[in-house]
Amino acid sequence: MNSHKHPIVTLITDFGLSDPYVASMKALILEAEPSAALVDISHEVPAHDILAGNFLLQASFSFFPPHTVHLCVIDPGVGGVRRPIIVSTDKYLFVAPDNGILSCAFESEGSFRTFEITADHYFHKPISKTFHGRDVFAPVAGWLAHGIEPFNFGPEISDPVRLELPKVRRASEHEFVGAILHIDRFGNLISNFPAADMEKVVERGRPSFQFLVENQMISQYRNSYSDAAPGELFAISGSSGYVEFSVREGSAAALTHAQRNSLVRLLFK
Amino acid sequence: MNSHKHPIVTLITDFGLSDPYVASMKALILEAEPSAALVDISHEVPAHDILAGNFLLQASFSFFPPHTVHLCVIDPGVGGVRRPIIVSTDKYLFVAPDNGILSCAFESEGSFRTFEITADHYFHKPISKTFHGRDVFAPVAGWLAHGIEPFNFGPEISDPVRLELPKVRRASEHEFVGAILHIDRFGNLISNFPAADMEKVVERGRPSFQFLVENQMISQYRNSYSDAAPGELFAISGSSGYVEFSVREGSAAALTHAQRNSLVRLLFK
Amino acid sequence: MNSHKHPIVTLITDFGLSDPYVASMKALILEAEPSAALVDISHEVPAHDILAGNFLLQASFSFFPPHTVHLCVIDPGVGGVRRPIIVSTDKYLFVAPDNGILSCAFESEGSFRTFEITADHYFHKPISKTFHGRDVFAPVAGWLAHGIEPFNFGPEISDPVRLELPKVRRASEHEFVGAILHIDRFGNLISNFPAADMEKVVERGRPSFQFLVENQMISQYRNSYSDAAPGELFAISGSSGYVEFSVREGSAAALTHAQRNSLVRLLFK
Repeated sequence: MNSHKHPIVTLITDFGLSDPYVASMKALILEAEPSAALVDISHEVPAHDILAGNFLLQASFSFFPPHTVHLCVIDPGVGGVRRPIIVSTDKYLFVAPDNGILSCAFESEGSFRTFEITADHYFHKPISKTFHGRDVFAPVAGWLAHGIEPFNFGPEISDPVRLELPKVRRASEHEFVGAILHIDRFGNLISNFPAADMEKVVERGRPSFQFLVENQMISQYRNSYSDAAPGELFAISGSSGYVEFSVREGSAAALTHAQRNSLVRLLFK
Repeated sequence: MNSHKHPIVTLITDFGLSDPYVASMKALILEAEPSAALVDISHEVPAHDILAGNFLLQASFSFFPPHTVHLCVIDPGVGGVRRPIIVSTDKYLFVAPDNGILSCAFESEGSFRTFEITADHYFHKPISKTFHGRDVFAPVAGWLAHGIEPFNFGPEISDPVRLELPKVRRASEHEFVGAILHIDRFGNLISNFPAADMEKVVERGRPSFQFLVENQMISQYRNSYSDAAPGELFAISGSSGYVEFSVREGSAAALTHAQRNSLVRLLFK
Repeated sequence: MNSHKHPIVTLITDFGLSDPYVASMKALILEAEPSAALVDISHEVPAHDILAGNFLLQASFSFFPPHTVHLCVIDPGVGGVRRPIIVSTDKYLFVAPDNGILSCAFESEGSFRTFEITADHYFHKPISKTFHGRDVFAPVAGWLAHGIEPFNFGPEISDPVRLELPKVRRASEHEFVGAILHIDRFGNLISNFPAADMEKVVERGRPSFQFLVENQMISQYRNSYSDAAPGELFAISGSSGYVEFSVREGSAAALTHAQRNSLVRLLFK
């Protein structure tokens, strides 16, 4: 037992906020661990969009205190053969269907262990055919928050599903190609170019580079929004650790017509 | 006094999340019971839609731990003669205007008692003319969560308003007629046919049945989403206890053009 | 130190609920004060709309218990020269960028003190260039909730930014001119005419007055929604302390085509 005074359970789902689904999950978390603080990451993930859920998890999970339980239910395969799993890292616990939504956790946390959830005495009965978020994943997240150790829920496994996350690749001596991972409410375009790498390039005063996003050329790397001129499209180190493209008090998405997965080219002269 | 260490108050309203209304209600719940865990069921109920609020309550309330206080404010008659009430069942407390929104609680919980709320020393003053959710219902929910017994808020009454909830009826020897109660974010159509009844029919291997929804014929009763072929429209036992119509990784609402209250016919050969 | 058993932190942002931003802020509040109750006022403020954020704050903050920390992050100037500030009043603490979003707090709370936040050992490191909501404001709100006194975060200042909030003005002997401050989900038009003033006028039985909103004449001042006829456009004392224009079970916004900032004329005969 490893219970904590102030357990936190976060939630990512594609259930939206108009249906009763999220509340039913919270009911079963609180039944297992009445003192859990519940933090919604987002329930507005597009239906069945595992990659979008993985991005939201990646962009937020590491800011939470140690021992936080991250519950992620994007589950198009509910009722089928996909396994329910727990991933345990040095700092966090993750609960999700084994469909790749936890890929970022495997990548960024170094050592981890994965357990298949089989101990159905923790589940809510009867188990519905369509909503394991409520009947399987939520109670397990609650009992983990309560301090039950992961190995109590089932056998350790070594082959969890990992998604191939979109990576920047070198296309030629003078060109890298990446992609837009996410477009936020402000129309900022979040790419998969690591901000730390670009900052080194900028610091070194490298003679000339430009990004190309949907035929829009971006050659300014700004230090803050307020350094940009109104209406200017620029690159900046974003808060998720990636290069973002923004328009000051405007929308880079509207200006470029870029969409999620749009290609981003980085050209060096 | 019957206070609990970890009181829960749930909220259903038609106030949305853009206005300050829900937060003001939470302020007054927390003033009465600072340790209350607040769980939003939904605030996206269509304006003044009591039946829709009742459905959300029905689909979620019974998953919460005993002693949970369910606060439901769809209140088109605010400021008029409708009474504020508390309903006390063996497991739960409900607070709402007496307009039928608690109808499912009367039906599914067996024994219950109803109290008219008249003890205005519990109210927030001054009482506004337009927002009893904040000034009447929220503080009462907070004090109930704190452990004040329902009879302290006013006299017991015997005639709370009950809505006639849509029921399946037998139309002929070979036909039952029901309706769509709710359409969820995924486009699943939730009917009012009890899933348990249909499962008995299916288990018995009854020779032939079909559902008709907006002229779409549905004759497959699937055990899980993954048993269905992509694009197939099928019936399944849903997580709310009713038969649902779904398309695997698609939208049954888009396919059938069904709406809430659309008729559902079940034909036996 | 002035810690409280049940600290509350409210949040107003323009971050929406689809992105990971709000959750990341909550992570850092809970890291500083694990027992904080987090109450969302709204995250649906239009992007960069400081006046809209100020209205939401004004309409809700005073209902919260004493010692509540109100965290308001509408921050178009992030990364620029605008200061992060704490405002301390007799009852509350406010944390925000110094761009006027706290104007209502200055107006309605009488005595207050303002502190510039400079003590960066409270911040989350590394401090991003684009998201001080997470890296600066959230941890400071958390530590305030934990009981750290405002003067620990930086020097007192005397010149916080105040927005000129739209006020009712006398246009002639028989005419006052105000404006629509907010349109809520129901289509109610919330003006800046103080309800208390209008109630005095109505009580005195003043012979004749009418409001004009987008050429619609409103001469009924109703005591409750249920006093109005269906479809009637009327004025009423709203729950935010202002005169509102409403249609019973309808939308005054749809009927009048009024928008935020539309003029409201009050004519006396």
